This record gives sequence, C-alpha cells and structure tokens, in this order.
Amino acid sequence: MNDILPINDIQKTAGVIIIGNEILSGRTQDRNVAYIGKNLEKRGISLKEVIVIPDDERIIIEKVKTYSNKFNYVFTTGGIGPTHDDITTASIAKAFSVKLIRHTEAVAIMKNYYEPGALTEARLKMADIPEGGVLIDNPVSGAPGIQFKNIFVMAGVPEIMQAMLDGLTDRLVCGPPILTASISTNLTESKLAAGMSKIQNKCTEVSIGSYPYFKRGELGVNIVLRCTEKNLLLGQLALITTLIEETKGIIIEIKTP
Amino acid sequence: MNDILPINDIQKTAGVIIIGNEILSGRTQDRNVAYIGKNLEKRGISLKEVIVIPDDERIIIEKVKTYSNKFNYVFTTGGIGPTHDDITTASIAKAFSVKLIRHTEAVAIMKNYYEPGALTEARLKMADIPEGGVLIDNPVSGAPGIQFKNIFVMAGVPEIMQAMLDGLTDRLVCGPPILTASISTNLTESKLAAGMSKIQNKCTEVSIGSYPYFKRGELGVNIVLRCTEKNLLLGQLALITTLIEETKGIIIEIKTP
Repeated sequence: MNDILPINDIQKTAGVIIIGNEILSGRTQDRNVAYIGKNLEKRGISLKEVIVIPDDERIIIEKVKTYSNKFNYVFTTGGIGPTHDDITTASIAKAFSVKLIRHTEAVAIMKNYYEPGALTEARLKMADIPEGGVLIDNPVSGAPGIQFKNIFVMAGVPEIMQAMLDGLTDRLVCGPPILTASISTNLTESKLAAGMSKIQNKCTEVSIGSYPYFKRGELGVNIVLRCTEKNLLLGQLALITTLIEETKGIIIEIKTP
Repeated sequence: MNDILPINDIQKTAGVIIIGNEILSGRTQDRNVAYIGKNLEKRGISLKEVIVIPDDERIIIEKVKTYSNKFNYVFTTGGIGPTHDDITTASIAKAFSVKLIRHTEAVAIMKNYYEPGALTEARLKMADIPEGGVLIDNPVSGAPGIQFKNIFVMAGVPEIMQAMLDGLTDRLVCGPPILTASISTNLTESKLAAGMSKIQNKCTEVSIGSYPYFKRGELGVNIVLRCTEKNLLLGQLALITTLIEETKGIIIEIKTP
C-alpha cells in the first residue's frame, strides 16, 4: 500500500465508503469526507482513499470486504436509517456471512430516547446489527452506529456522523499527528514550480502541495506543507518563504502548527 | 455492472476520479463531485462511482486503468497544473504505455493566453499530453484539459473544471435525462418507512430515496423520486403525497420536473 505521506510504521491507515445515491446525483453536497479527513489527521491516522457508491447491496458488499482487508480502519456513512433504501447494515452482515441480530442494548437506548409508543417497527430495524458487532454512541438522535470488525458504520447526516466519530476516543490506535503549515502568495504557481520542486527533493519527509486559487478574478497559490516532525516542517517552510521573496511575490498569509 | 437506477440500454455510465491529497486531508472541501453528478444527470449519463485518491503515480495508474475499462466515461479532476505534485497527465501516459508529447495546438493556445515572456517552462509542462489525446477547451485560464481514450482529464479548481465539463457538448453520448421530483414533510422517516416500502415495490422503475434532515433542532424528511419516465414519476409522487396526508404529516414542499 502506498502512502500519501512518508509516515512511520505505527501510523494506521483508513478508507472511507460514502453510501448514497444522493451524493452521486449531486443532489446532496457531501460534507463528511472533509470532516473525517481532518479528524483522522488530528489522530495521526492516514486517510488513503474515499469511494462514493450507490445504495446497492452488491456494491456495498464488494467494497466493505475490499476496504476491510486493505486498510486498518474503514468508516462508512449513510444507509443506516429506518427506510427501504437503508441497506448498509444488512449488506455488511451478508458480506461477512453473519446473522443480523436485534441488539438488546440498542433497543434499550432507543426505548429511552423515543417517547412512549414512538418506537415503531421501522425504527427498531435500526437496532438490528451484524452478530459480533458493538454499538457506537449517537448523542444526537438515539439510534446507535455500529462497529463490526474494523468497520465503523456511521450515519450520513453530518451532525450525527460527527458526534459518532468524535466519540470514538478509545477504539482507534492513534499515531503522531500530522502537522500542517501553509503559506499563500499572489504569485501564480508556475513561477514557483521549479524552485518548489528543488525544495521538495531536499526533504521528502515533508509533503509539499501547491493549490492554485482563482478568487474574484485574482490568481494565486496556497502552498501546504505536511509532516509529523515540526522541525523539518518549519525548515522547509523557511525555504519556501525565501523562494517567494526572491521571486518578488507578496506573502499573503503564513500559518504554522 | 449494477445500476443506480433502472435505466435503459442506451444510457451510458460514468466514473469520477478525484486526485488530490488536499481532499483526503480535509483541507479542501470538494465541490466537483456534486457539479459533475448534476451535469451528467442532465445529460442522461449515470454516475456510478467516485473515488478520491492521493497524488501518487502508482495509485493514479491503477485507478485510471480500472475505471477506463469499467465505465463508458471517466472524468478526473486535479493534478494538471505546472508544479511538482501535478502528475495526473504523466501517470495516464504511463498507465497506457504511450509517450508524453508536447502538443503544438496547446502551446499555441497558451502563447495566445499569456503575456509575452510569461509562458515559462513550468507552464509549458501543461502542453504535454499523452500521445493520441485531444484537447479540452479551458476558457477560464488557458491551459487545456485532455481527453485520452474515454478519460476526460480536467482541472481541480471548480471554476475551471466546470467550464471544461460544460464545453464537452459533442463528445458525450447522452441518454434520456433522469427526471427528479421531491417532496418534504415534517414527519420523521420511520413513520413513513413501511408505506414507502410498499410504494417502492409497486413500481421499481422509479427510484425512491428518503433523506432525513436535522435542521435547527427539527427533524423531517425529504423524499426524492427519480426516473426517466415522467408519468411513472408523477404516479409514484401522488402515492407518496397521499401517504403523508394519511399519516397526518405537513407537506412542506413539492418539486416536480
């Protein structure tokens, strides 16, 4: 498996599976990938790949199996509600040939959450989990997420997904956090390309990304440096700062960890 | 291959490859997936899968080969600028074992776009395309995108990507557009789940999606219906409207094609 960053051995890898026709049709703007990416970066876990797939049993089965083998952790979002198109949990049970069982603790949590009489059969479907799975706390809307093997099954609604992910404090092995520094300038990236390439080659431990922007008719570039070692990061940042100054660019903003 | 919607034989399929560490790290919020999804839906092309991968030659090569075989059309975004981390074009050439050649027309376009003297060697890198490829017009910032086989290589900056995609009027075989209707209500989706499931089973040509929302402390649900046949779509919409009324829900909004 290839790494986004040169990372150390103890850093775990992750893959994300976004399940939902509404993301593919463009009807819903995904907000979960960016949140998960930042959250994992803080934990020192390296997000390697994200895939967006439809609410389709065959495809969900194929992808959860592949990702579960390929990455240390897999996070899914979407498809765990009470309706006919919520098939994530059942598909995961099928993928690993285990039964769906009605989880006693999940039922108790939902009984406690809903008003008397509001726990319909449709809602109880959300208490069915693949045998061997454990619950993920949902402080927003009751019905829990599920951890099954190395797969963390979370809601698609961003507010609920975020609360579920934030709560996974003791289940993920964290690595040294990836530190980020950035510098933005009014120069276009082509003016810096040759110089940046030399700086990148001097120290491959620091990943240097160059992101042009086009805002209100103005072109410019944000340069982002990432590394787990602060000293290396700041050393490379200093070289890029000098490069921009020598190229007679204006430094608009510098951010350091 | 499985379909998101029951679609007819002449409808083409598409896959999207989003290339960029900045999306995986959560630093940049992707806006391209939703735009491409909507654009393809209007053209009657079915977007099946999206993958987000890092700026990593080995992974880009693997994914463009897989997607090119798996889907009728492949769209990539990102990694076609002038800097060291822009490796999409070179990776595609490697993937299909063709040479990168400096494209005369691309050079001419860029000479015309830039001020005299501004067409640096770094920028000229953007005129290198896999042999056999053709250009995609970039009305925003000069440097063209590339079509190679069934792969459309576009910029990552949303404004530029959108202009490139919008301009592909005669290169994509369009199908009947997928029509969408939607209805939103203050009912939670669990109250409608059983009824909706029956309605879905009555007419599988219409895909019915149920999307709960949680806004300013209020729960509710948007139900989205999708089909290429207007009559079928409106028939199912009528059944769901009746279901909501019978369940004593308030209909907040109805949208029809």
